[in-house]
Amino acid sequence: MFLPLCKFHHQYLIRHLRCLAVRFYSNEQISEEVAKLLDLKAKLGDEPQKSKFILKCPKGTRDYNPQQMAIREGVFNTIIKCFKRHGAETIDTPVFELKETLTGKYGEDSKLIYDLKDQGGELLSLRYDLTVPFARYLAMNKIQSVKRYHIAKVYRRDNPAMTRGRFREFYQCDFDIAGQYDVMIPDAECIKLVSEILNQLELGDYIIKINHRKVLDGMFAACGVPDDKFRGACSAVDKLDKTFWEDVRSEMIQEKGIDPIAVDKIGKFVGLQGRTELIDKLLEDESIKAQKSAVEGLEDIRILLKYLELYGITDKVVFDLSLARGLDYYTGVIYEAILQGYAHTPKSGAEGDESVSVGSVAGGGRYDGLVGMFDAKGKKVPCVGVSIGVERVFAIMESRALASKLKTRTTETEVYVVSAQKNLVEERMRICKELWDADVKTEQSYKRNPKALDQFQYCETNCIPIAIIIGGSEIENKVVTLRIVGTREEVYANNYSTELVGGIGGIVFVYPLYCNQILAQIVDRYFTQSLLISSVNNLQ
Amino acid sequence: MFLPLCKFHHQYLIRHLRCLAVRFYSNEQISEEVAKLLDLKAKLGDEPQKSKFILKCPKGTRDYNPQQMAIREGVFNTIIKCFKRHGAETIDTPVFELKETLTGKYGEDSKLIYDLKDQGGELLSLRYDLTVPFARYLAMNKIQSVKRYHIAKVYRRDNPAMTRGRFREFYQCDFDIAGQYDVMIPDAECIKLVSEILNQLELGDYIIKINHRKVLDGMFAACGVPDDKFRGACSAVDKLDKTFWEDVRSEMIQEKGIDPIAVDKIGKFVGLQGRTELIDKLLEDESIKAQKSAVEGLEDIRILLKYLELYGITDKVVFDLSLARGLDYYTGVIYEAILQGYAHTPKSGAEGDESVSVGSVAGGGRYDGLVGMFDAKGKKVPCVGVSIGVERVFAIMESRALASKLKTRTTETEVYVVSAQKNLVEERMRICKELWDADVKTEQSYKRNPKALDQFQYCETNCIPIAIIIGGSEIENKVVTLRIVGTREEVYANNYSTELVGGIGGIVFVYPLYCNQILAQIVDRYFTQSLLISSVNNLQ
Repeated sequence: MFLPLCKFHHQYLIRHLRCLAVRFYSNEQISEEVAKLLDLKAKLGDEPQKSKFILKCPKGTRDYNPQQMAIREGVFNTIIKCFKRHGAETIDTPVFELKETLTGKYGEDSKLIYDLKDQGGELLSLRYDLTVPFARYLAMNKIQSVKRYHIAKVYRRDNPAMTRGRFREFYQCDFDIAGQYDVMIPDAECIKLVSEILNQLELGDYIIKINHRKVLDGMFAACGVPDDKFRGACSAVDKLDKTFWEDVRSEMIQEKGIDPIAVDKIGKFVGLQGRTELIDKLLEDESIKAQKSAVEGLEDIRILLKYLELYGITDKVVFDLSLARGLDYYTGVIYEAILQGYAHTPKSGAEGDESVSVGSVAGGGRYDGLVGMFDAKGKKVPCVGVSIGVERVFAIMESRALASKLKTRTTETEVYVVSAQKNLVEERMRICKELWDADVKTEQSYKRNPKALDQFQYCETNCIPIAIIIGGSEIENKVVTLRIVGTREEVYANNYSTELVGGIGGIVFVYPLYCNQILAQIVDRYFTQSLLISSVNNLQ
Repeated sequence: MFLPLCKFHHQYLIRHLRCLAVRFYSNEQISEEVAKLLDLKAKLGDEPQKSKFILKCPKGTRDYNPQQMAIREGVFNTIIKCFKRHGAETIDTPVFELKETLTGKYGEDSKLIYDLKDQGGELLSLRYDLTVPFARYLAMNKIQSVKRYHIAKVYRRDNPAMTRGRFREFYQCDFDIAGQYDVMIPDAECIKLVSEILNQLELGDYIIKINHRKVLDGMFAACGVPDDKFRGACSAVDKLDKTFWEDVRSEMIQEKGIDPIAVDKIGKFVGLQGRTELIDKLLEDESIKAQKSAVEGLEDIRILLKYLELYGITDKVVFDLSLARGLDYYTGVIYEAILQGYAHTPKSGAEGDESVSVGSVAGGGRYDGLVGMFDAKGKKVPCVGVSIGVERVFAIMESRALASKLKTRTTETEVYVVSAQKNLVEERMRICKELWDADVKTEQSYKRNPKALDQFQYCETNCIPIAIIIGGSEIENKVVTLRIVGTREEVYANNYSTELVGGIGGIVFVYPLYCNQILAQIVDRYFTQSLLISSVNNLQ
C-alpha cells in the first residue's frame, strides 16, 4: 500500500537522509537512524486513511429514497395488475447462478456478466436476465407448461447512463408463457399485454416493433451472408436503435468480416417497415422467396398481425426489419416497444431521416431452444415472453414528479400523539399502545419532553392528518384534545362521557382517555368524514 | 478442458498409436495419421458434455415456486402493515457495496462475506446485512433522522441448514430508527413492534430476550477479562443459543485465550434471567457495581422494562445475560425473539437444564457508532433497529401449508373462455379482449382447437370460478353460455337481449356477444353473489 506522508514528515525524512549523506556515521549509527525512520513510517501507516475512503454506491447503481420507492411501488402495482389479469403466477430465483448455467446463452454480451470471486466451492455469476434462470427452473423441475411473472434485479457490467435509466443493477419485470401450444396464440397475448401495461402506465404514445429471427436469418442468407456470420450480423443490426447505419455498416464489414455487397443489401432491407403489405412485398422478392426460413417467418408474422387486429392493437404495431435484439437465445418472433415521446432523430441515418430511438421500454420474443439446453436429453419446452424495462419508466416518473412539485407522501401515519407540556411521555406511550393495538397508524416524538411547536411542525411536514393532544387539563378531565392538522381546527373536550358526540366543525368531541378501542373508533370515524379527506388533500 | 473419450474411441486411438510404433512410417505418413487423430479428437470435443452439467441452484439458495411465493407475499404484507403502523418509510440499496464499505463492521463474521471477482474497476462485495448499507446511506446523504424499513435479500457464505430456514441467500426485513433521541424511547418501540409482528404472524408463543452491550462489557470486566478480549468473549457467548456451555467455555479458554477462572465467573452470570429484580440483584454484586459501564447499562434496562410495561408486553420480555449477538457494531440494548414451540432442550447444558433454542426469528439492537464510521468527520447518528428473520417464518408456514393439505391458489383468474367446438379461436380472442379491456382477469387455451374436457379440467385444477362457453348455437344466437365451475351449474342463453336478467340457480342469463363492457359487468355482478363466493371456497 502506498502511504502518502504529510508535508512535515516528508521534510523530516529528507533532513535525516541529508544528515546521513553528509556526516560520517558508523554502521551502527546508520542502523539506529534507519530504525527511527522505519518506526516513524510505521506510525504514519497506523493513522486511519479516512479521507481516502469514498462514500458512494458502486458504479452504475443507486439507492432508492422513500420518494423513489413510492414511485417504484406504484409502477410495480400497475404492472403486476396487468400480469395477474392474464392469469400469471409468480416465482423467484437466486440472484446468482452457477457460472455454467449462464455460459453460452448471451453471445457477445457474455463479457458483461458479473462473476463472483472464487472463495472455494462453486463458481458463481450474478444473473444477467430473468429468462435464463426461468429456463433453468423449468428444466430442473421438469415443468412442461406455466405462465409466470418475475420481478427482480439483474446485473450487467455495461456502460451506465443513469439519467436515462441505464444501470448496472436494474429491475426487470418478466412475463413468460411456456408450453407446446399453437402458433402465435401466446405470442400475440404477450404483445397485447405490453400494450395494456404501456396504456396503464400513461407514458404517452408508443409503437411496438415486431420481427422474426427466421425472417432475419432468411434476409441475411438472401443477402449472401454465410450461416456462421448470422449471429454477428444480427448483433450489429441490433445497434440500429442506438447508432447510425454507417457505424453498423462498418462494424459488419470490419469487425464481422461480412462482404460489403452483402452489407449494402442488408442496408436496403433494414430500412423497411410496414404491416401485411410489407409481407406481400417481401414474398415477391425472389431472393427472399428462395429462403425457406424467411417464408416461414413471414407466414408467422401474417398470423400474428391477424391476432393483434382481433386484440384491437393494429395501430400500435409495426413489422420492422431493422429490429434484431442481440440475445442469442431467440428463435422466433421478437418485439420491442418504443415510447414516441422519448425517441430522438440523429443528424444523419441510413435512409437520411431514420429515427434513432432511446425510448425502448419493453422487449421480448420466442425462445424455443433455451430450456432444452438445460435438459439432459435436450427435451424442449417452447417459450415466449416479454420483459418490461421499468428503470426507464422510473426515470420518466421521477422527472415528472420533480416537475409537478407535488409532494409524494412516503408514510401512511394517521395520528400523531402530542404532549403539550412536560413529563407526559408515559401518558403518550399508553395512548400510542391503544392506537397501535387497534390498528391505527400512529407516531409520537422520541423525546421525553418535545416542544409543542416541533410536534405540530412534524405533523404538517409529514402530512399527518390528526393530532391527539394531551396536557394538564386533559389529564385532569380524563380526555384528549384533537386537532385536524390540515385546517388547524381544534376540538377541546370539556366534559367526560363514554358516549361519542359526532360531527366536525364547531361541535365538541368528547371522549375518555385510555378507554380501550374508543380512540381507534374515533379515528376510524374521522377517516370517513369528507372534511378530513379534504384536509388530507390540502396537505398533499 | 479435459475431454473424456468413450471406450470405443479410446481403443481406436490406442490401436493407431500402436501402428505408429511398430510400423516404419515416413514423416509425411506420420503427419497424416496425427492429423486424422486430431480431427477425431476435435469431433469428440464438439459433442456436448451434457451429462457433466449439474442442474441446480447454488449451494444454500433456492427457488420460490408459486405456492411458496404466495406464502412469502402473505408474510411480507403482514410485516409491512406493522412497519407502516409505526410510521416507517422504505428505502432500497444495491445488492453489492464497495468492499471497503463492509470492511471492519462484522468482526469474526467477515470471512462469510461474498466478494465479487475483480473484473477491473471497483472491488465489490454482496451485502451481508441491511444495517451497514443503511448506515452508509445515512452518512452519504447526511440524514440526521429517519424511520425506515427495508426488505431485501442478504448474503452469507455460512453453512446452510435449509430445512430450518438457514440459507446463504435470505431475506431480512429491517426496521430502524435513526436520530438523536431520548434514552430507550425508540428502543422500546422496536421491541413493541417485534411483539406486534409475531402476534400477527400467529407463530405461537414467543419470548423476547433483552440485554445490553454495556452490561456484557461490564460483566466481562467484572470477571477479569482484559478489554481487548471483550469482543472475542462476546462472540463465544453468542453461540450459547446453538451450542452447550462446555463448548463455549473451551472456545473462550483455548481459542480466545481467556483465563479459566474468568470464564467460570462468566458461566455463573450467563445462567441468569429475570426482570427488574435481576437488575437489583446484579447491582448488589460488588464486582458489577464497580463497573461504571455495567451500572449504566442496567439503568437503561430498568427504563426499558418500564416502557415495555406501558406497552403491555412485560410477559413477553426477559432480561437474559446469555444474550450476546455476534455483530461488532452494537453499542447499547440488544434483543432477540425466540419462538417457544421451536426451541429444543439439549441433553446437557451449563446449568444442567438450559434450553438451547433454534427458534430465533428476530433480533436487533442499538448501534450508535456505525454511521460515524462512514462520516469524514466521524459525526455520529445514533440508531436502533430490528431485523425479522423471515426465512424461518417461511419454513414454518410452508410446513403448515403442507400439513393442512389445503391448496393455495396462485393465480387470480376470474374467467376462462372455453370454445365448445373447432375453429373458434378468433371468437375466443374477441371475448378475451373485451374482458381484459374491462379489467376482468381472463384466460383461454393457447391451442387453436382445444378439447372441451381439457378446458373444463383447467378451470377446475386452477380454481377458476367462471367459464364462458361459446359453440355453434351460441354464435348463431349471438350469446354465450356461462358455467359456475364450482357447482358445474350451466346457464344457457336462448334469446337475445341487451337487458341482463338477474339471479343465479334456475333463472336464465341472457346477454349478447361482443357488446362492449356487458360481459365484464356480468362477471362483476357474479362476483358479488354469495353462491359464487361459496363455489370459489369449495374449489380452494
